Amino acid sequence: VLGTGVVGRAIATKLVEIGHDVTMGSRTAGNEKAVEWAQAAGARAAEGTFAQAAEAGEVVFNCTSGAVSLDVLRAAGAGNLAGKVLVDVSNPLDFSRGRPPTLSVCNTDSVAESIQREFPDARVVKALNTVNNQVMVDPGHLGGAHNLFMCGDDAAAKAQVLDLIEGFGWPRDAVIDLGDITAARGMEMYVPLWLRLVGAVGSADFNIAVVR
Amino acid sequence: VLGTGVVGRAIATKLVEIGHDVTMGSRTAGNEKAVEWAQAAGARAAEGTFAQAAEAGEVVFNCTSGAVSLDVLRAAGAGNLAGKVLVDVSNPLDFSRGRPPTLSVCNTDSVAESIQREFPDARVVKALNTVNNQVMVDPGHLGGAHNLFMCGDDAAAKAQVLDLIEGFGWPRDAVIDLGDITAARGMEMYVPLWLRLVGAVGSADFNIAVVR
Repeated sequence: VLGTGVVGRAIATKLVEIGHDVTMGSRTAGNEKAVEWAQAAGARAAEGTFAQAAEAGEVVFNCTSGAVSLDVLRAAGAGNLAGKVLVDVSNPLDFSRGRPPTLSVCNTDSVAESIQREFPDARVVKALNTVNNQVMVDPGHLGGAHNLFMCGDDAAAKAQVLDLIEGFGWPRDAVIDLGDITAARGMEMYVPLWLRLVGAVGSADFNIAVVR
Repeated sequence: VLGTGVVGRAIATKLVEIGHDVTMGSRTAGNEKAVEWAQAAGARAAEGTFAQAAEAGEVVFNCTSGAVSLDVLRAAGAGNLAGKVLVDVSNPLDFSRGRPPTLSVCNTDSVAESIQREFPDARVVKALNTVNNQVMVDPGHLGGAHNLFMCGDDAAAKAQVLDLIEGFGWPRDAVIDLGDITAARGMEMYVPLWLRLVGAVGSADFNIAVVR
């Protein structure tokens, strides 16, 4: 798990809970939040640099801000990502113009596509970026069925991510495969609507359901 | 109603059905689709130029493509829009790069904002752009509760649009007010996700519900 923020910690904790060995990566080994997380999470938890975390993982979760994800993955190292499933949870939020944030990339490109282009040997799957960390790892606490989106160019990688996501509590039929990695544009461009819904709903603890 | 496409015809027909007098506007009077619509829709229906339709209306629906909406509204005339509620149903779809389309404006601006800036005396409300024409005017045919979004700077205008939308069959509590007109960015940027969902669901006849 790359990233020590609320998303990284929520996913890393859930992965440990369902029986995986997890290394949380950050820019420098010994990062205070990562050390604190690893001590609380028990024997299956470790921490280290982005490169150490990527090297240790069979699956890599990018839980860093989309604006810095490429830098983070360069630090992780292309060799440590090659052949691995890379779950991109990021959103390209740009707060430099104030709030609400704009996106640092959108419309004709996405973070997930830029990652796949720069690391062609990684098997990038975009997922989980459309909900907050509580919903990511405990979807059942909302009052009704709702949906998660996923996309990527590698069908086997998507199947593996679907298994992991099912372990997070998502019913398999709640996960909608939107197709190839270019669908990440839509998944990331949904975030400005999500941010406005947070204001209207009065909470980030919600999700959307597709109703036919 | 400005626009003679499927969206304009669906909204114009529904407005006539619920008792309003409607003029369908197009670039030239006598437009074949507009004439055909007006003949089929009965005594409350008329057709004319964009300017004639805008002049006739108490409320103006922009049902043209977002890429040409400013041109259409210039043809309608600022004087014919001043003081009126202008419901912007458009999406800025740009097919010049092929399919799926990109957006001609997004992220730091939206069609609705550009309309409000150029026509400051119009009372712009963004609404109905996140669903297809069948759902717009017959939301009850889907299998469950679902939500519509609305935004704009004029509270009284939004209240008037909510009344109209209720007449289309939308329960009042299904309509989520996202705040000022800048929320139109999120409403328009949802469309790339919607387009991918059309592919995944296999139909455009769906909508999303907010689940808490």
